[in-house]
Amino acid sequence: MSSNKARIAVLGATGYSGIEAVRYLATHPLVEISLLTSEHYIGRKVSEVHRHLSKVDLPAFEELRPAAIKGRADAVISCLRHKAGAAALAEIANAGVKLVDVAADYRLKDPQLYKQTYGIEHPAPALLKGAVYGLTEFRRAEIREAKLVGNPGCYPTGALLGILPLIQRDLIDPSSILIDAKSGTTGAGRSANIDQIFAEINENARPYDVGTHRHTPEIEQEIASILGRDVSVLFVPNLIPTSRGILSSIFLRPRAGTTATDIRQAFQACYAAAPFVKVLGDGDLPELRNVRATNLCELSFVLHKPTQTLCVMTAIDNLGKGAAGQAIQNLNLMLGFDETAGLLNLAPVP
Amino acid sequence: MSSNKARIAVLGATGYSGIEAVRYLATHPLVEISLLTSEHYIGRKVSEVHRHLSKVDLPAFEELRPAAIKGRADAVISCLRHKAGAAALAEIANAGVKLVDVAADYRLKDPQLYKQTYGIEHPAPALLKGAVYGLTEFRRAEIREAKLVGNPGCYPTGALLGILPLIQRDLIDPSSILIDAKSGTTGAGRSANIDQIFAEINENARPYDVGTHRHTPEIEQEIASILGRDVSVLFVPNLIPTSRGILSSIFLRPRAGTTATDIRQAFQACYAAAPFVKVLGDGDLPELRNVRATNLCELSFVLHKPTQTLCVMTAIDNLGKGAAGQAIQNLNLMLGFDETAGLLNLAPVP
Amino acid sequence: MSSNKARIAVLGATGYSGIEAVRYLATHPLVEISLLTSEHYIGRKVSEVHRHLSKVDLPAFEELRPAAIKGRADAVISCLRHKAGAAALAEIANAGVKLVDVAADYRLKDPQLYKQTYGIEHPAPALLKGAVYGLTEFRRAEIREAKLVGNPGCYPTGALLGILPLIQRDLIDPSSILIDAKSGTTGAGRSANIDQIFAEINENARPYDVGTHRHTPEIEQEIASILGRDVSVLFVPNLIPTSRGILSSIFLRPRAGTTATDIRQAFQACYAAAPFVKVLGDGDLPELRNVRATNLCELSFVLHKPTQTLCVMTAIDNLGKGAAGQAIQNLNLMLGFDETAGLLNLAPVP
Amino acid sequence: MSSNKARIAVLGATGYSGIEAVRYLATHPLVEISLLTSEHYIGRKVSEVHRHLSKVDLPAFEELRPAAIKGRADAVISCLRHKAGAAALAEIANAGVKLVDVAADYRLKDPQLYKQTYGIEHPAPALLKGAVYGLTEFRRAEIREAKLVGNPGCYPTGALLGILPLIQRDLIDPSSILIDAKSGTTGAGRSANIDQIFAEINENARPYDVGTHRHTPEIEQEIASILGRDVSVLFVPNLIPTSRGILSSIFLRPRAGTTATDIRQAFQACYAAAPFVKVLGDGDLPELRNVRATNLCELSFVLHKPTQTLCVMTAIDNLGKGAAGQAIQNLNLMLGFDETAGLLNLAPVP
Repeated sequence: MSSNKARIAVLGATGYSGIEAVRYLATHPLVEISLLTSEHYIGRKVSEVHRHLSKVDLPAFEELRPAAIKGRADAVISCLRHKAGAAALAEIANAGVKLVDVAADYRLKDPQLYKQTYGIEHPAPALLKGAVYGLTEFRRAEIREAKLVGNPGCYPTGALLGILPLIQRDLIDPSSILIDAKSGTTGAGRSANIDQIFAEINENARPYDVGTHRHTPEIEQEIASILGRDVSVLFVPNLIPTSRGILSSIFLRPRAGTTATDIRQAFQACYAAAPFVKVLGDGDLPELRNVRATNLCELSFVLHKPTQTLCVMTAIDNLGKGAAGQAIQNLNLMLGFDETAGLLNLAPVP
Repeated sequence: MSSNKARIAVLGATGYSGIEAVRYLATHPLVEISLLTSEHYIGRKVSEVHRHLSKVDLPAFEELRPAAIKGRADAVISCLRHKAGAAALAEIANAGVKLVDVAADYRLKDPQLYKQTYGIEHPAPALLKGAVYGLTEFRRAEIREAKLVGNPGCYPTGALLGILPLIQRDLIDPSSILIDAKSGTTGAGRSANIDQIFAEINENARPYDVGTHRHTPEIEQEIASILGRDVSVLFVPNLIPTSRGILSSIFLRPRAGTTATDIRQAFQACYAAAPFVKVLGDGDLPELRNVRATNLCELSFVLHKPTQTLCVMTAIDNLGKGAAGQAIQNLNLMLGFDETAGLLNLAPVP
Repeated sequence: MSSNKARIAVLGATGYSGIEAVRYLATHPLVEISLLTSEHYIGRKVSEVHRHLSKVDLPAFEELRPAAIKGRADAVISCLRHKAGAAALAEIANAGVKLVDVAADYRLKDPQLYKQTYGIEHPAPALLKGAVYGLTEFRRAEIREAKLVGNPGCYPTGALLGILPLIQRDLIDPSSILIDAKSGTTGAGRSANIDQIFAEINENARPYDVGTHRHTPEIEQEIASILGRDVSVLFVPNLIPTSRGILSSIFLRPRAGTTATDIRQAFQACYAAAPFVKVLGDGDLPELRNVRATNLCELSFVLHKPTQTLCVMTAIDNLGKGAAGQAIQNLNLMLGFDETAGLLNLAPVP
Repeated sequence: MSSNKARIAVLGATGYSGIEAVRYLATHPLVEISLLTSEHYIGRKVSEVHRHLSKVDLPAFEELRPAAIKGRADAVISCLRHKAGAAALAEIANAGVKLVDVAADYRLKDPQLYKQTYGIEHPAPALLKGAVYGLTEFRRAEIREAKLVGNPGCYPTGALLGILPLIQRDLIDPSSILIDAKSGTTGAGRSANIDQIFAEINENARPYDVGTHRHTPEIEQEIASILGRDVSVLFVPNLIPTSRGILSSIFLRPRAGTTATDIRQAFQACYAAAPFVKVLGDGDLPELRNVRATNLCELSFVLHKPTQTLCVMTAIDNLGKGAAGQAIQNLNLMLGFDETAGLLNLAPVP
């Protein structure tokens, strides 16, 4: 390990987002992993717990000691579970360590909304205002200066990338946003849950939390932030039998007179300088496999004249652009690196 | 085989719909399979081609000879491919044999629309008017008297079961119907197609034919038939990695003042006597696995106040209620049997 | 429910074997389900917990009260977990209720071997001698008279059906039996186990418990029982990403001079009257899908001259012939019914 | 593209091995892709056909013109289909271009055996003697000097890595080698084959070509090459529902007195300097997911005393160490690069 690389700590490094962050960081040219924490595997080598990571030299898992982070890491990616990790992260952030929280605790600006959504008082409401919502493509400047980034949820990432450029140009009616998303199972994390065992998922598919999913407020907050007023969306998540990936159909009502060219221009202009959002050519449609194990988003749209409906479709890897990938993209900006550092791998297809 | 059972011919009996029809008919108490035709397996025993059917005594596959059907069968289920089989079916129907066409050739009433949708002139347009669209729950009386039933497509079945009861009671705005459907791969049939090979489907999901799928006119026709005027819908099909099943999210704009109770009553009244459509209890949501290998449809809905949107969700097996199951349900009615005869198996879960 | 049907209790009716037993029994023409017990769902309706079973009228789940079984059921299928249920089953069996134990507690004859294998003293060793090992095809006469049947494990069923006919005719060297089995995930039961969640199984495969799996003594016991002396086998289980099914390759050294005809005759003679074991034609090989959701076993073999090795291959559904199916097959014999009653469904392929 | 990088042509670059080779080469630090050929996609951009490769700058697909290769590439990886590509490769090799053939045409040394195995006369038998069998770990020195490398088959790679170290030390009886391999579906290539469509593979598993698979002679040739005399093995391939991966169980009879320590030492000594073969610790067993999308092989063994049998288990990615990965490993040696160049990615788990 070279002393001029940035030292990164990954907290909660044994869940799916955590090991994906480690996988990216392990081959990142500008960082070294200086600390890995785990709740269940303290003292064990990474190579014992996650054999696919054994080719690289990594520190053993340690217990999380918030006060010790500052001396051990220049920046932190936290994959601790939401709520459980919030207070520890506040301590770390207050100590001045740059921090990206992959969980949900630093995304919502309004402590009341947080309480309503997650059922507890936020342990550090004072930090919420300064935390930056880390949808990279829309907040690059803020993220570069941020001390604390709330990394977007996987569903919100897939949805907002398809919605925000249209809001920016006022091309759609914001009162009529419907999102139907199909997610692989790693979105639910790596925990022993009977609903997640193979035989419950395989050869099955089902909607859940229709209109009530806890990622909804986050989507609404970010649309409202651009729109300048409150907005409601209907979000319908579905579980499909894949390990990774979120495929979203977003149904929108275009403003009268909006053309396909207007829409294409909005997306292309918005993402012209975005290395990870790929606006597909006319007739091409997103596929999960093309973004698997990458930080990419594929995006396309169909403007359906007979019903005057715009259908925008996006595909992301929930562990990539939907979690660890975007966390590293944000970390790169926070550390002054190129946004793409360590994230240029190609999807293994098939 | 008992001489007082109805003799049934299955045409195109080696595709996925065909073998599913044979599976159901083989244990149907009131029928015997008198004839099986195949394009590729002429002269071969069923047990050689489809070993899972070898426990039952079945006739060997024969070449299709339309003129010979009348003497060999009391009724026919045709699983011939659309377009390829249309003329032969006309000959059989004109000979007075009761016929259910699982393919798409006798669903649309308008020969012009057929040509527009399938790219060829219909070979027997005179038959279209008399053919009954076989969405059983909505046309029982007609089906009982029908000579020729156009069995609904798999996607239209999943969509229309969720839409028509609301149209009947004028609970929704028909100008704003959006359908996002997720389908397993057998919907594409059993043919050598590189897009269907395992490694192209597995750990992948993708939309296709967005707004242009050929099942759309069929959905519009049936809504219009109840509504009394033309209507357009946006239909978005997605391919997911399951063998069977169609899960549909249908987004609708309720008429002002419509309550969840109104909607529940509409569904419950419509399906009170429907043995295969299950309106789920409040809070329950459809799952593909519960309908797998059955003729069932699970249906539920969420009325989302903030966006004034109604989301109706349905799950069917595309080879069951979406094809062979509904074909037999219709056949039962055409032959004067109980609608459920031969269709009462339970889904093998998991 | 008709009073002249046999009343059956299913204990532990919410695990995978339990719900599969209920699925079979619910359409069994000669029985009625009189009692269902569950640890976690006491008081709840079956239709709430397992919606795929909601079309049939079933009693709600109750707590297990061994003393109350006698008055409530003519026979019992127990799907309680091994060890946890052993004492309760002893009480029920001692009360004179006919009982098939799908778990492992009444399979091994030797209490010492039981202790060695399962790590506890057997709670009712006196019952072991009288319990019949329920590999139906080899113990029909005993099973007809049995009070207590220890239903074979899923792996032993797949292995023994391929081995025992050859032992009976002394066609192979019993000192050289190697079994490589590939199993779907329901073999591990329906419990929250992180190793069983979808993303750990999907697009993965792995051996486990190589040479140490607890089903090995059971395989050895049954071979020894025919052979007349002790024997050791090497058993290698592998986990593959399917919900159901066990595919076994069994490698054997044939006695000098043994021909393929000898082997074929041994299998055909042994299974001539066996409705559920299908000896495939020359060149055909077993497939999991052909036995899925049935009580069938497909079996074939290749005699490889260059290495003088016989490879016997079998396919079963671990929940069918490997658990609930065979339990009902045994129950049928115990109750004087035809062996096939309630078990004649066809596999839903694909 | 830098002029001091080696220029590599990939022939048949649109099949699964081909696109995997392109994926590796596209991020390989020491090479540039100078030519891509395709039968079906001539003139099309890679980014149109394989969108997951669109982030990198690649030449469009061209028709294969063997005579033109020499001026366009320093070395060639051929993923042409076996037999179809053999003559073209001979022309290229004879022109003096370094060549790795991923197909089967330059693996067998004996033209008679080739004819027997593949059913045609070899078009360039004179080249066979000089071609090197590219199982890298066993022929490094030869590969460094080779003009033409016959890259091993996927099954032979998984088998031989587990067998050859034991043959080298005479630890097992070579007359008794049994291999049971489980393969994902990409081993069958990317072609429209009804046996490979999703619904035929999903929730299924089956053996095929038992004792007759065309990879068997290749396995036997390489064992014989070390052993110094002919040998026969029984090879049993099975198809399982994964996209990638080969998991092999190899059953061997150890020489009298052989200990687990002997075996471990044989593997460890053989692979001490092998960056891609990982001899697992005692008690650990191979898993497909740990090698997915990499050039790794995981290997472990169990010595089963009761049956005096050694079970060696290996896991590889059939497209990695079983095809494109090993091809690049060989190419690296042929070009004087470090063996690991471009191959150090980590498996995306899950």
